[in-house]
Amino acid sequence: MTTPPVAADPRQQSLMMRACRREPVERTPVWLMRQAGRYLPEYRAIREQVGFLELCKTPRLSAEVMIATVERLGVDAAIIFSDLLPLLEPMGLDLEFTAGEGPVIHNPVREAADVQRVRELADVDRVGFVMDTVAATRAGLPDSIPVIGFAGAPFTLAGYCIEAGTSKAWTLTKQFMYRHEAAWHDLLARIARAVSRYLVAQLDAGAQLVQLFDSWVGCLGPDDYRRYVLPHSRAALAEAARRAPVIHFASGNPALLPLLAEAGGSVIGIDWRIDLERGWEAVGFERAVQGNLDPIVLFADRQTVRQRTREVLARAGGRPGHIFNLGHGVLPGTPVENVLELIAAVKEG
Amino acid sequence: MTTPPVAADPRQQSLMMRACRREPVERTPVWLMRQAGRYLPEYRAIREQVGFLELCKTPRLSAEVMIATVERLGVDAAIIFSDLLPLLEPMGLDLEFTAGEGPVIHNPVREAADVQRVRELADVDRVGFVMDTVAATRAGLPDSIPVIGFAGAPFTLAGYCIEAGTSKAWTLTKQFMYRHEAAWHDLLARIARAVSRYLVAQLDAGAQLVQLFDSWVGCLGPDDYRRYVLPHSRAALAEAARRAPVIHFASGNPALLPLLAEAGGSVIGIDWRIDLERGWEAVGFERAVQGNLDPIVLFADRQTVRQRTREVLARAGGRPGHIFNLGHGVLPGTPVENVLELIAAVKEG
Repeated sequence: MTTPPVAADPRQQSLMMRACRREPVERTPVWLMRQAGRYLPEYRAIREQVGFLELCKTPRLSAEVMIATVERLGVDAAIIFSDLLPLLEPMGLDLEFTAGEGPVIHNPVREAADVQRVRELADVDRVGFVMDTVAATRAGLPDSIPVIGFAGAPFTLAGYCIEAGTSKAWTLTKQFMYRHEAAWHDLLARIARAVSRYLVAQLDAGAQLVQLFDSWVGCLGPDDYRRYVLPHSRAALAEAARRAPVIHFASGNPALLPLLAEAGGSVIGIDWRIDLERGWEAVGFERAVQGNLDPIVLFADRQTVRQRTREVLARAGGRPGHIFNLGHGVLPGTPVENVLELIAAVKEG
Repeated sequence: MTTPPVAADPRQQSLMMRACRREPVERTPVWLMRQAGRYLPEYRAIREQVGFLELCKTPRLSAEVMIATVERLGVDAAIIFSDLLPLLEPMGLDLEFTAGEGPVIHNPVREAADVQRVRELADVDRVGFVMDTVAATRAGLPDSIPVIGFAGAPFTLAGYCIEAGTSKAWTLTKQFMYRHEAAWHDLLARIARAVSRYLVAQLDAGAQLVQLFDSWVGCLGPDDYRRYVLPHSRAALAEAARRAPVIHFASGNPALLPLLAEAGGSVIGIDWRIDLERGWEAVGFERAVQGNLDPIVLFADRQTVRQRTREVLARAGGRPGHIFNLGHGVLPGTPVENVLELIAAVKEG
């Protein structure tokens, strides 16, 4: 399945895509990172039937989960239901999602020589289920809803490879980076090539745009980002960016925002650690931005949710190119009615 | 025991104190957060004899640990060996340090009504062992070495009270803050009054300056910091700041730096997430700064440690008022020879 030419694709005229191009919009588009997740009872019901990784690898179910979520929430975009880590399996990493601990990699990269066993992603068909999910999600949604493909950024994926899972401070990752600089660059270059192919394949399968998640790179300062990360994120994004809008998201350190923009992305994702206006200024107003309500605000009362949503909109100041989102994913336990309240508040403007 | 008048105290002319006042210095002073810690074999040997909390409550041993560390490392200041959390015990929190998990609070603050059982610190004698540690540390060190007292900041201490220990994302803390705003302010005001008395008591016991650690406040954005935290940090610092230099340190979000300065502190502690020059600019060059090497750099080879140390000094640009430190505490497992290399590199300039 291949994408129809841009001019012929009605999704290109959707609210979301126009905002990505900083064209005028009737209202701010809104979608939420991890909008289909454990906070939704429908999602939990499906997960009682099927494990997380199995769900990711079953395109029919993955598509169903996202289509139902988009319909229930009334959001303006569908990110495919998938995960950052399955891409690492055909690269030789032995991945498991355990019930309590989240992702575990049984053969982590710990020494410089370990990088040699991280294989090039020779064939994206090894993660073909993701492209099938893109196509099935697209097929089940109206033309007003673009489909977002995604991948983890080289730093974030390398972090999982090295830590053997998630981490509080990414200490082993940074130790590896400082101690084994050549091997580090080799590892990130391998990952960047895989990510590049993977993003392009998702566009070819029918996604209108892609998002690169550098979820954990905020543990670095700007000098380290420039030296150890930026060239690889740029390489991961370049080919997709020639074909479609790219959202480049990082969390954890507002001082990196100008460098994220330098690495690439027509839309920069901003977390809640900076107010949206200052964040946008750091990115440059000539780019679109996505963000940035703190997901924990969704645990407050509905009035607070509405007020804080309006505050983010006020910081955007009606400039073209704002996509409303949280600063990170929706958390488990978030009250569904507050998510609906947020979306209603964005739509009312 | 009370402090001699400033003019009569030779420690006031030390390198460290002159840098705090932004006076000219022959070279940049250096000390390291958690300079006496698990990375040192001498410290580990003592800890085989005595538990962490017991060590904190035994002034003779606490002082010995720090005095030996200052002598071994050749640093320019002694922070007392203590911890952020013992202050919470006389306030009614049931604190334990477990071997594997770190601090645990057995009666956390979870509901708004729980704040009522967080008692005012009626009498600093309840943590009198800390004042004895100040006096004993001072007595064992030459006049060139000032003694730094310290306390946790209201947000960070409230975070431990609510999470029942440390946390990755401080989710419960922020949920409490957004849901129970009046109770939140009540809790932080109680803590701020205790911290204020505690810092002043440490100065009265002979400390030349104090540091306020807001180690985890970087999980907030600037608007939230201003609304939920700033007034309490200001209250915690005000009285000590009338008497002595105060170092105000936070980690995790460079966008907070101007607000930290607004809350108070003659020296602002900067973590590694921003380069020192930009961080200093955000604070204002009319204040002194402390920082900001990433502690994980100390796991690299000695040449890298030396080079990165010099890069921080270069960012300081010879301006008056730079105190060299890490961006956070020395990590367990850090090679001692790299700590010595860092200190030598600062001294060579």
